Amino acid sequence: MSFFARFLLNNGIPLGLVCALVGLAFAIYLIRTIVAASPGNERMRQIAGAIEEGARAYLRRQVFTISIIAAIIFVLLLITKDAPTAIGFVIGAACSLTAGYIGMRIAVLANTRTTQAATTSRHEALKAAFNGGAVTGLLVVGLALLAVGVFYVVATKFIGSANAVRSLVGLALGSSLISVFARLGGGIYTKAADVGADLVGKIESNLDEDDPRNPATIADNVGDNVGDCAGMAADVFETYAVSLIGAILLGALTLGGNAANGADIAKAAIVYPFVLGGISVLGAIIGILYVAFKRGKPGAILMGAVLASGIVSAVLYWPATHLLFPKSVQIGDALHDPTDLYFASLIGLVMTGVVVIITNYYTSTSFSPVRSIAKASETGHATNIIAGLAIGQHATALPVGFIGIAILLSFHFGGLYGIAIAVTSMLSMAGVIISLDAFGPITDNAGGIAVMSQLPKEVRAITDELDAVGNTMKAVTKGYAIASAGLAALVLFGSYVEELKAHIGTGHASFDPHFLEFSLTEPKVIIGLFIGGLLPFLFTAFSMDAVGKAAGSVVREVRRQLAAKPGILRGEETPDYGTCVDIVTRAALREMIVPALLPVIFVLVVAAVPALGPVVLGGVLVGTIVTGLFVAIAMTSSGGAWDNAKKYIEEGNHGGKHSPAHAASVTGDTVGDPYKDTAGPAINPMIKVVNILAILIIPIFLKLWLR
Amino acid sequence: MSFFARFLLNNGIPLGLVCALVGLAFAIYLIRTIVAASPGNERMRQIAGAIEEGARAYLRRQVFTISIIAAIIFVLLLITKDAPTAIGFVIGAACSLTAGYIGMRIAVLANTRTTQAATTSRHEALKAAFNGGAVTGLLVVGLALLAVGVFYVVATKFIGSANAVRSLVGLALGSSLISVFARLGGGIYTKAADVGADLVGKIESNLDEDDPRNPATIADNVGDNVGDCAGMAADVFETYAVSLIGAILLGALTLGGNAANGADIAKAAIVYPFVLGGISVLGAIIGILYVAFKRGKPGAILMGAVLASGIVSAVLYWPATHLLFPKSVQIGDALHDPTDLYFASLIGLVMTGVVVIITNYYTSTSFSPVRSIAKASETGHATNIIAGLAIGQHATALPVGFIGIAILLSFHFGGLYGIAIAVTSMLSMAGVIISLDAFGPITDNAGGIAVMSQLPKEVRAITDELDAVGNTMKAVTKGYAIASAGLAALVLFGSYVEELKAHIGTGHASFDPHFLEFSLTEPKVIIGLFIGGLLPFLFTAFSMDAVGKAAGSVVREVRRQLAAKPGILRGEETPDYGTCVDIVTRAALREMIVPALLPVIFVLVVAAVPALGPVVLGGVLVGTIVTGLFVAIAMTSSGGAWDNAKKYIEEGNHGGKHSPAHAASVTGDTVGDPYKDTAGPAINPMIKVVNILAILIIPIFLKLWLR
Repeated sequence: MSFFARFLLNNGIPLGLVCALVGLAFAIYLIRTIVAASPGNERMRQIAGAIEEGARAYLRRQVFTISIIAAIIFVLLLITKDAPTAIGFVIGAACSLTAGYIGMRIAVLANTRTTQAATTSRHEALKAAFNGGAVTGLLVVGLALLAVGVFYVVATKFIGSANAVRSLVGLALGSSLISVFARLGGGIYTKAADVGADLVGKIESNLDEDDPRNPATIADNVGDNVGDCAGMAADVFETYAVSLIGAILLGALTLGGNAANGADIAKAAIVYPFVLGGISVLGAIIGILYVAFKRGKPGAILMGAVLASGIVSAVLYWPATHLLFPKSVQIGDALHDPTDLYFASLIGLVMTGVVVIITNYYTSTSFSPVRSIAKASETGHATNIIAGLAIGQHATALPVGFIGIAILLSFHFGGLYGIAIAVTSMLSMAGVIISLDAFGPITDNAGGIAVMSQLPKEVRAITDELDAVGNTMKAVTKGYAIASAGLAALVLFGSYVEELKAHIGTGHASFDPHFLEFSLTEPKVIIGLFIGGLLPFLFTAFSMDAVGKAAGSVVREVRRQLAAKPGILRGEETPDYGTCVDIVTRAALREMIVPALLPVIFVLVVAAVPALGPVVLGGVLVGTIVTGLFVAIAMTSSGGAWDNAKKYIEEGNHGGKHSPAHAASVTGDTVGDPYKDTAGPAINPMIKVVNILAILIIPIFLKLWLR
Repeated sequence: MSFFARFLLNNGIPLGLVCALVGLAFAIYLIRTIVAASPGNERMRQIAGAIEEGARAYLRRQVFTISIIAAIIFVLLLITKDAPTAIGFVIGAACSLTAGYIGMRIAVLANTRTTQAATTSRHEALKAAFNGGAVTGLLVVGLALLAVGVFYVVATKFIGSANAVRSLVGLALGSSLISVFARLGGGIYTKAADVGADLVGKIESNLDEDDPRNPATIADNVGDNVGDCAGMAADVFETYAVSLIGAILLGALTLGGNAANGADIAKAAIVYPFVLGGISVLGAIIGILYVAFKRGKPGAILMGAVLASGIVSAVLYWPATHLLFPKSVQIGDALHDPTDLYFASLIGLVMTGVVVIITNYYTSTSFSPVRSIAKASETGHATNIIAGLAIGQHATALPVGFIGIAILLSFHFGGLYGIAIAVTSMLSMAGVIISLDAFGPITDNAGGIAVMSQLPKEVRAITDELDAVGNTMKAVTKGYAIASAGLAALVLFGSYVEELKAHIGTGHASFDPHFLEFSLTEPKVIIGLFIGGLLPFLFTAFSMDAVGKAAGSVVREVRRQLAAKPGILRGEETPDYGTCVDIVTRAALREMIVPALLPVIFVLVVAAVPALGPVVLGGVLVGTIVTGLFVAIAMTSSGGAWDNAKKYIEEGNHGGKHSPAHAASVTGDTVGDPYKDTAGPAINPMIKVVNILAILIIPIFLKLWLR
């Protein structure tokens, strides 16, 4: 083994963490640039301040609510499992919350600066918004690498590598579970405020979007920040952390657990994901610099950033892989060489590009899906809805097809570990992908501030153009998150099976080892698939109900204010924004509990009911992944397509604004709101909660299962 | 073995067929009663004649189109398989078409008689409509028993029992594939006509439902007959025939193939499903007589009929089971006694009741789901849609839960064969269940005829009351069909695995026997689940597109007529109903091809692509069942609930007719139309096409797979 190879093997994790720190340092530099920029005039600062105050108030209460739940789970883990897992859980939960909090803070800093920058030029506005997004991207990725890496290194010192890997499952659970709450809470908040504001404001009182006379306007803008920024940041933090942990877990179980591989390979299997992650932080920085220096169409520049970032990763992965792994690695029954593993990592990068292109096709105003919905709006509300629902279902075909190909190929190149590596490399692109996503709500808010501060129309035109780009980017990120979640969950299912095998062993008297095959010919597996398949349907149904109920509270409050102070509509009295913010906050936190606990209840009940048990549970994990993937893609695609179909009509097509087609498209957009921003994206962390929890409870329920 | 036991064993199949003939004789008696009743006045007969003419014209063309496809498949089967399978295919296809044709004929006979009977009393109208439905029910069930039984007996004479069983798969494919076409063609026809008529008639020209000035009115009424009657009859014929064949197949493979069982048990395994079927024909007759003599609320009488029919079956199953089977039967690894098998058959009967109750809860105006949609309509189109979609998803939970319990219990009582028996007994209730279902479109048409013939309002009031009952019954039958289809498909998947094992044997050099486990830890199985899971989403998306396109043709034609003859709207000119009928006919037949061939293409491509093959195909079968079940239940429940939410508002709640809430509920109803009458119910035969085709092609692709 060469000096470099030995060096990378021994220092790969610290090197990955150094890259993470470089990313964080760059993020801090960007924050300074943002803070240094002008936040605009008095009126703009006032509005931004109100939005920020509302968002902080919500997050404070969310942290409080979630902390109570987390504390209960911490104690339960301490009793039923062990201290390292429980501590891991708290770290995961804390980091997930932190990621969300930072995402929101940066967004509210950047939105008013983007509005101000839009008064000078389009490119300055693009840069301001993108820098805001980039901070979130770098922080989320850096935080995830650091949390997992530091925890692993420290835990290894105390309890050894094998136990440290197991305790990482606690960290994964913490980040996933909290991210379900954040996604749901934020998603319910943003859509309840949005739908509630629209129902009374637009329909009953004929107010425009962002009209300051609407008492729910500030709540609506707060929603963008707590849902699209904080919720999304927590979600992607979770996805990244969990895929990293999944890869480490599977590396330890399959490569490390295989006697044919030496200690070096066992170590390399754990180091490799950190190295890939570290490299991609550098790639993300290159992508961000690309935006700073490149001029042209906003959409093209952002896509160029993704491409640049991907190329940097693809080039640097090659030497890293060949240094870390020897000529032959035993994975499962097959021998693989480093080039195989390199190909597996490339698959993840390619999948990122594929998902971006497909989602863009189904949700951008430039292609036939969105335009066909716009056309269907001409014949009314119902045909708009039918067309949107059908497009969402069509949109599942290509991503699922490519996921299938990715599974086949990456398994071919490296067994289950190959799939894990593909997921890790896919997620390592999160740095630049989130930069694009967070860009959306920032420009959306910037537009809102421009309207409320009565800035000239040209400013709103610039933020509107950027907002349309942001809309597609948001849809793209959701496609990316859910596709990677599907793959990551499969890796977790693999870990569940390996863990179960490790615990039960090959010859336990009361447990037929045949069951560990999870064969489709076993009725219990089929029943598991049904129960698991049900979960996404039920979860999204409850989530949509929650939005409906929370929106109802907003409607009642707005009606109350408008009735109590008739001067509001005449512009003579100021509405009480705070009460609306307060009501949505309480409603969102109240309504998120049931759906968020649903996956937990499903797993625990299946595990505890004697007629069900570990075999049914295995089916549940896969069933949730299968239907979850379809439901999530269909919902986010339909939602994005409806939204942009409305935008397309507003651009003057099919009769333009205030035409019957426009009214129909507003219906589609409203139906799409909880689809794409609450229920659909929350499936992503939900799938993983189910899978991680199942791994975690194996030792707890083992005695019951083997009785 | 007692004399009776020996007698039943040797003559069980003929006895079952005799029961089928008794059912058919009773059906002919009912037809005579119907024909003898007064068809009403001149105007009523004219309208009924126009509807009948349109329906017959459509079915003639549908038979023509489908015959071409069937002929091609017949030739392909002759080349790639053998003559008995190909002949079986033709018989299955012909019977499926016949069932649909008879269903339609009876409905158009009964509708005008129901209108006429409604001029005398409610109970007479109920009896007339129910007798029409009962004819279809008895004919479908009798035809299925006879087709399968006679084919099996005759084929056994020529090629022996084992080969006869295999050739039955051809019969199953014929009935399923043709029933996909019939369901889709009829479903597209009925909803294209309905939506098309509503879009121009109600929205653009302010015409009421069934207004004779609307050129698409007759097409709309024809649609009820070709979709809800013909399509449904073909569908349930298929479901019944396929479950019967599935039970025979699994009986032969698992009980007959087990050396521990003697020849008598092997024979009993095949005879048993016929005996159960025969008994339930008698049960259905009792149920029909119950309606004739019982007085009271229509809904209660119909439910009583189901109960009476179930009790007769439950009582007679007991001696039959104990006569046919000896004290111990080896099924899989376990020994079972006749009481076990009796319990398995009871599970099917209970499941029928459970599904009826659950679907009734989610789609009847008496319970909270429908009322919550009605309430949500107050805040507009979007909230109506969101509420309906959420209800549909909620509605999947209980049926799927009970299906899981049914699988667990029936497997416990008789292994895979136990599941097959449960499905057979569930389907054997089809006689009485279809009587309820066919009741719906007959009363719907009767109401249409009453309006168009300008009969007194009291007549319409009676048909309206019966129509509301019919609506819930239609939803209930769909739930019943899809739940039984899910179970039947699982039986077919079991047969696929057994067939594959039988063909490949235990030690083929180039095929790892581990693959025959279809383990969830095998990536190919997961990919199969994804591909199969995609099918229902894509299939329903294409189906909804098809309705949209066909409805577009209707809209254009109606607009053309109203523009060309301005006198139509003033009631001075007669619209040309025939052209509309003709246009929908052509559009429906054209648009049904792509979605109907989708499952065939999926199976053949997966089988033929070397990287996929039989293991992925196994995953595809289960994947289609899992997501298909959810999508079908969600769609049919949402659709039924939307429909009745509209009816609930029309009863005067939430503002009643012409209120904003009513407008919103019309949107929901229109979205629900293709959901509940085209896409949703067509999933049922589609799932089975996939599973049957997979069984059928095993010997064809075997060489390729073992290369």
